[in-house]
Amino acid sequence: MRIAIDAMGGDLGPRATVGGAARALSADSRLDIVLFGQQSRLNSEIARLPRSLAAAASRLQVENVDAVLADSQQPAWALRHGGDTSMARMLACVASGKAAAGVSAGNTGALMALARHTLGTVAGITRPAISTAIPTCNEGRCYLLDLGANVDVGPGRLVEFARMGDAMARHVDGLQRPRVALLNVGVEGTKGSPTVKEADRRLRELVDIHYIGYVEGDGIFSGAADVVVCDGFTGNAVLKASEGLAKMLVARVQATFEAHWSSRLVGLLARPALMRLRDELDPVRYNGASLLGIRGIVVKSHGSADAAGFHYAVARAAQEVRRDLPRRLAVS
Amino acid sequence: MRIAIDAMGGDLGPRATVGGAARALSADSRLDIVLFGQQSRLNSEIARLPRSLAAAASRLQVENVDAVLADSQQPAWALRHGGDTSMARMLACVASGKAAAGVSAGNTGALMALARHTLGTVAGITRPAISTAIPTCNEGRCYLLDLGANVDVGPGRLVEFARMGDAMARHVDGLQRPRVALLNVGVEGTKGSPTVKEADRRLRELVDIHYIGYVEGDGIFSGAADVVVCDGFTGNAVLKASEGLAKMLVARVQATFEAHWSSRLVGLLARPALMRLRDELDPVRYNGASLLGIRGIVVKSHGSADAAGFHYAVARAAQEVRRDLPRRLAVS
Repeated sequence: MRIAIDAMGGDLGPRATVGGAARALSADSRLDIVLFGQQSRLNSEIARLPRSLAAAASRLQVENVDAVLADSQQPAWALRHGGDTSMARMLACVASGKAAAGVSAGNTGALMALARHTLGTVAGITRPAISTAIPTCNEGRCYLLDLGANVDVGPGRLVEFARMGDAMARHVDGLQRPRVALLNVGVEGTKGSPTVKEADRRLRELVDIHYIGYVEGDGIFSGAADVVVCDGFTGNAVLKASEGLAKMLVARVQATFEAHWSSRLVGLLARPALMRLRDELDPVRYNGASLLGIRGIVVKSHGSADAAGFHYAVARAAQEVRRDLPRRLAVS
Repeated sequence: MRIAIDAMGGDLGPRATVGGAARALSADSRLDIVLFGQQSRLNSEIARLPRSLAAAASRLQVENVDAVLADSQQPAWALRHGGDTSMARMLACVASGKAAAGVSAGNTGALMALARHTLGTVAGITRPAISTAIPTCNEGRCYLLDLGANVDVGPGRLVEFARMGDAMARHVDGLQRPRVALLNVGVEGTKGSPTVKEADRRLRELVDIHYIGYVEGDGIFSGAADVVVCDGFTGNAVLKASEGLAKMLVARVQATFEAHWSSRLVGLLARPALMRLRDELDPVRYNGASLLGIRGIVVKSHGSADAAGFHYAVARAAQEVRRDLPRRLAVS
């Protein structure tokens, strides 16, 4: 299986993408990877890989692309002028069938716009969505969508999000009967906007989805649901706020420990565990986010992901390929 | 200064409200408190107060009200049938001027509906909002509003929320020039719904508010703004999700420490600090939430607040009285 990678995106650029790609190859012997980006920079990063990854790196292929889409570029600009960038060439490689999936840590809006343009959408899906797996209390995970692709949505879109989240949890995670919930400001039937109430009514009529009704924001983390559906404005705000809170909490725990002499030792003991926790709880950095509803598999790695984070995004893409996700979305 | 308390609301009922009221009296010698609720239950809770609070408890007055508004009651039901409940009588006491402010841990929707009905709204404010102070990275705080009173809002409401948040930060917290931001899915001007873009345009025209533009969800916790404004659906989802995440994080940190023998000691050392952190990071439980734009001061304590949490809500109400908040909202 070949994965195409936009090696120039993200805050760390090739340092994270080349390292992450090599790790993914090392962990999965059935993978091949083609990197799109500035050849000289990619080759120098490949040369700097640790010896332990050298064998895996022989399965890295480099396709030279000089132009890079800046993180600040608007989706509309990307559509008009982004044709020969590393991101667009990666997507074209997926569209041609030469790669089974694509991964980028670049600008999300541009990636979504170019992916729709290049790959199209799955039959029956009006608008693609962005989703990621959030860690839950019971060591499980919950797919939250949409995360920002659609800021103004009607009930029909929310039902589509529910179908896509269900397919993801069912086919990629192997859940028999994923519990699908609608995010609301209360769990009583009288709460919420007209859009949410109408989506609730339509979801109750579906027989092929295990719809469990409303959850409030804490239901995302409580393990009460496997899929939580909301508009992209709310989903984006919740995800970004969670990132901010996780960062603050870890810093506060650290500071609390270090405030007292006796706690300094605790801080030293605790620091590695806390850092690991922060990474795990930063779901997009950890898991990558899937562009759902695109006719092809595209995973967005977090802009600030390091090599470990980028590796997870590549592994996520490979998993979606093996589970044949786009076809599952179409028939679900 | 007299504060009126609905002593029957909240998950813990009189156990939390009577204890919290006594603590508030003990901490602030200029306060008097009148408790509305079932006399026999309130008196038995008062009799069970620790000796250290006995002197303060002599400033607790009990007004017998037999009926209690159930947490499950809808606002519309509360308006029609809630007239002789502990919540309604507490609000009537504020409306009559016999108390300077009111506090309840009961149903938020019913409290907002009854408060609007009984006290009316401040001149120039179309719809009241709910706000609380969220702790930030730099040991500061950020007022987030609306938290659920208004799920469908236009740009005009968002501008009103900005004015109310500004008045709160300026007059209650004493900030000279609070930084007011609008929550969005990106910080670029092209991002967001038409409502958010129009609110942004109008806020830029205001000369008396220090409007700093868009923030994303992580901006609530980063210390970048003193006031963050959004619709009630998003604000509620962000707040509830933050509560859920904080709970999960603290549990995970604890579990991480306890997973190894050497860490058990760490867990024992860390547990008190972690519990305190969890409480501080649960902003509504800690601070209470203010009903802003009501012609009178009403503070909502968290439904699951204990005596310490309820004490903070009472102290918050007293602070808003001293800073003359409703009049500030009207002239701001």
